[in-house]
Amino acid sequence: MTMNYPNGRRYSVSSSSDIKGSKKINTKFSNRGMTFEEMINETNLYYLQRDIAVIHKKPTPIQIVKVDYPKRSAAKIKEAYFKQASTTDYNGVYQGRYLDFEAKETKNKTSFPLANLHDHQVYHMKKCVKQQGIVFVLVWFSTLKRCFLLSSSSVFDFWDKKQNGKKSIPLSFFESDGIEVSIGFAPRVDYLAALEKLTIGGA
Amino acid sequence: MTMNYPNGRRYSVSSSSDIKGSKKINTKFSNRGMTFEEMINETNLYYLQRDIAVIHKKPTPIQIVKVDYPKRSAAKIKEAYFKQASTTDYNGVYQGRYLDFEAKETKNKTSFPLANLHDHQVYHMKKCVKQQGIVFVLVWFSTLKRCFLLSSSSVFDFWDKKQNGKKSIPLSFFESDGIEVSIGFAPRVDYLAALEKLTIGGA
Repeated sequence: MTMNYPNGRRYSVSSSSDIKGSKKINTKFSNRGMTFEEMINETNLYYLQRDIAVIHKKPTPIQIVKVDYPKRSAAKIKEAYFKQASTTDYNGVYQGRYLDFEAKETKNKTSFPLANLHDHQVYHMKKCVKQQGIVFVLVWFSTLKRCFLLSSSSVFDFWDKKQNGKKSIPLSFFESDGIEVSIGFAPRVDYLAALEKLTIGGA
Repeated sequence: MTMNYPNGRRYSVSSSSDIKGSKKINTKFSNRGMTFEEMINETNLYYLQRDIAVIHKKPTPIQIVKVDYPKRSAAKIKEAYFKQASTTDYNGVYQGRYLDFEAKETKNKTSFPLANLHDHQVYHMKKCVKQQGIVFVLVWFSTLKRCFLLSSSSVFDFWDKKQNGKKSIPLSFFESDGIEVSIGFAPRVDYLAALEKLTIGGA
């Protein structure tokens, strides 16, 4: 299945560039102009460099149709299409445990529309939970500049009630049952600290 | 960094196609014409469908330069390049534990050349071990039709001695210190059974 870029957005070349160890971290505290994905990637780099966790974003899956192999230079892909991913975007290891999550942003100020998640992502999350992985979503309310971590069990509860007409998760639910993630300078989005609170809370 | 396709091989369109649930599994036992990657992907599908483990191959990372957005049809990538991956190819969760491995094939009959591994892959593997992930390599000696699982600690031993002129891991070492993976019909490459033997053996 080919498609436009996931989430109906256009592909942004800058957002695809890997954040390497050499990348200069802004010395001024600011996340203006930084996408949520970039904020998460920067956080993951912070965790990696300090041996806190090894979490990577998976590359965007591409269906390649035509490739040129010019002499003396790099192979050039001349025709390709975006494919639907079959998993969530992020996974990795934290203190021996498998971590798996999806990071989503919404401009909505009062709720998170479930249309931001896809069947195959929820399927994958349920499979990972069966294997005792730690699975959650991170939601960035970009207008409010607030980020929440919500356990997969809460997500499944809402997802499975979608048929009943409930098409979104209210902000108030994130406030009562999620963990708010503090947004800072380093790490940018300290979701592991939020995860620890969730685990201590027994959710 | 753009490059020709990883491992210096040409990109094969067929080898990139995802193995979906609907894919017909050959009714005749045969892996002729099947690449090692396809064999592993089929094994992972077997594990997934039976809730044994959730392991996926990461998509090949691509640097996208130019995209067309034609009306009423899928976005078309018109210029892109292969990028060096910053991790191993496979990871996932098995009974709560994080699993991470690289799968390589060689035509060599007597040893596995370390040139098949890259610095960034070994770096990633070491980082995952620090986080108590289960990390290993699967090597397919395609001429011999034999597959071995080797623990990351053995790989690191050889890797760190590379400076001393030791540029490959002899087959005899795989025989003595690795676990041979049985190749069958379903699952095709039962590497989790081999992993259990390695763990019981205390390696």
